Amino acid sequence: LTTQFTISIVGLGLMGGSLALALRAAEQPRWREARLVGMARNKTTLAAAVADGAVDEGTSDLAQAVCEADLVVLGTPVRTILRLLPEVARHAKAGAVVIDMGSSKAAICAGMAELPARVQPVGGHPLCGKELAGYASAEATLYQGKVFVLCPLPNTSPDALRLAQDLALAIGARPLISDAETHDRAVAAISHVPYAAAAALVRAFAAGDEPLAWELASSGFRDTTRLAGSDVDMMLDILLTNRPAVLEWMDRLSGSLGEIRCALADGREDVLRDMLTLAQETRTNLAQRMKW
Amino acid sequence: LTTQFTISIVGLGLMGGSLALALRAAEQPRWREARLVGMARNKTTLAAAVADGAVDEGTSDLAQAVCEADLVVLGTPVRTILRLLPEVARHAKAGAVVIDMGSSKAAICAGMAELPARVQPVGGHPLCGKELAGYASAEATLYQGKVFVLCPLPNTSPDALRLAQDLALAIGARPLISDAETHDRAVAAISHVPYAAAAALVRAFAAGDEPLAWELASSGFRDTTRLAGSDVDMMLDILLTNRPAVLEWMDRLSGSLGEIRCALADGREDVLRDMLTLAQETRTNLAQRMKW
Repeated sequence: LTTQFTISIVGLGLMGGSLALALRAAEQPRWREARLVGMARNKTTLAAAVADGAVDEGTSDLAQAVCEADLVVLGTPVRTILRLLPEVARHAKAGAVVIDMGSSKAAICAGMAELPARVQPVGGHPLCGKELAGYASAEATLYQGKVFVLCPLPNTSPDALRLAQDLALAIGARPLISDAETHDRAVAAISHVPYAAAAALVRAFAAGDEPLAWELASSGFRDTTRLAGSDVDMMLDILLTNRPAVLEWMDRLSGSLGEIRCALADGREDVLRDMLTLAQETRTNLAQRMKW
Repeated sequence: LTTQFTISIVGLGLMGGSLALALRAAEQPRWREARLVGMARNKTTLAAAVADGAVDEGTSDLAQAVCEADLVVLGTPVRTILRLLPEVARHAKAGAVVIDMGSSKAAICAGMAELPARVQPVGGHPLCGKELAGYASAEATLYQGKVFVLCPLPNTSPDALRLAQDLALAIGARPLISDAETHDRAVAAISHVPYAAAAALVRAFAAGDEPLAWELASSGFRDTTRLAGSDVDMMLDILLTNRPAVLEWMDRLSGSLGEIRCALADGREDVLRDMLTLAQETRTNLAQRMKW
């Protein structure tokens, strides 16, 4: 049945696995009944995804995974996406739409811009990470209510963009169109640098060698450092492919931390109070706006 | 009935209010049936606590609140505790045990050491903050399973320390004895500096003026910055009374963040990978140990 709408999901980790499960649970028959072909290097993952019925077919061969697909979704770490893009374009059907789910977009969109015109690329980023990686952590509801950023390229056809938007809606996400550079600056601020801060806190904690701290760590430390438990390969790719924006926001964070330190060291209570009040009000506004 | 075991709770915010509610729900009759006198400046809070039955009596007068108490628990911000201590000692019954619930201990224990011998002080800190303050956020289960640090002074009697331990157990907490300085270094690492980091992240976010960041902020930013929503008066007191340890740990955090920045800026992928892996492993070990 090669006329059946076929989706190839490359990478069956948290993102790809959850996408497959979410499509199986989609309301519209077009998405729920699509033929899903999953690609993963790991044979155990492939076997589990096929056994679960998450995908109809599993393969470790990229050409086989994408050759019959109307839509190819790349769910691997960012630098693997960059490496796979030319190969996907070579093996995909003419007119196939190629979307990715990587957390930085400028490098991927630059790679997509160089693909031959026979495929229709759209950059994508659903904002729904958790600190657990792998197919075992996948869940059908991962994308529910989350923003799914789409970065169309100058030559992306309206139909291809519409398909990407429909995919986002089918899995319960909210599509939001942005250019890659604006996206990358925004996620540096709200995700990549918070990750770096969490990792830095845990490194300081580990180096500080204060045994009682291990006994007393409670919900505050748990939440502030949660992102430090993220998959290292994934985060390394993100940081290295979003370097300018991450460095810029890391400098903003260091400056902000330094100002708090100065006010505290100098005992300038009014200055310190103003800084902490601004942070408290901003955080409260954001929480209300986001319904946290 | 002045022979009834009487507990005075000074401050009926999140901590004091939750203490009253937890005592009402205690298993042992001694604690469940104790007479509770609550003190708060705010008349609405007092009326609510009396109406709820959280306390038997409410007053805004410190002398009246403590004069019949066998046990006085101070649940106000740290510098208010410091200010109230001499007054509590002056008005309390001879032999009364005085415990506090402030988040920094060195300054409070120094103040306690100067009290006349007629009262029995014990420094205390239950590790159960949440970012919401006030009596409206109080709950009977706040202390359940949480560590309750106790800092006995050199002249604290064994009976007074035992009463403090029994109080912690009565509300479902786990008493843990520490000296004030070790406590203060540990909570700087796991609470006060994570708060400063969260506030710094939110300040950088606010100053960065990146409108899309407001749309994309998701669970990672929510958790990493949760502590920035903490009550400013409370945190200001904590930072200013735990300055040396907070500054030391802020410098450790800045150093750790700077090392990550350097490795990223120089594209030293192996170094960056080692740093992030150490953070990931430490965070995972801690999460397992704490059953997060």
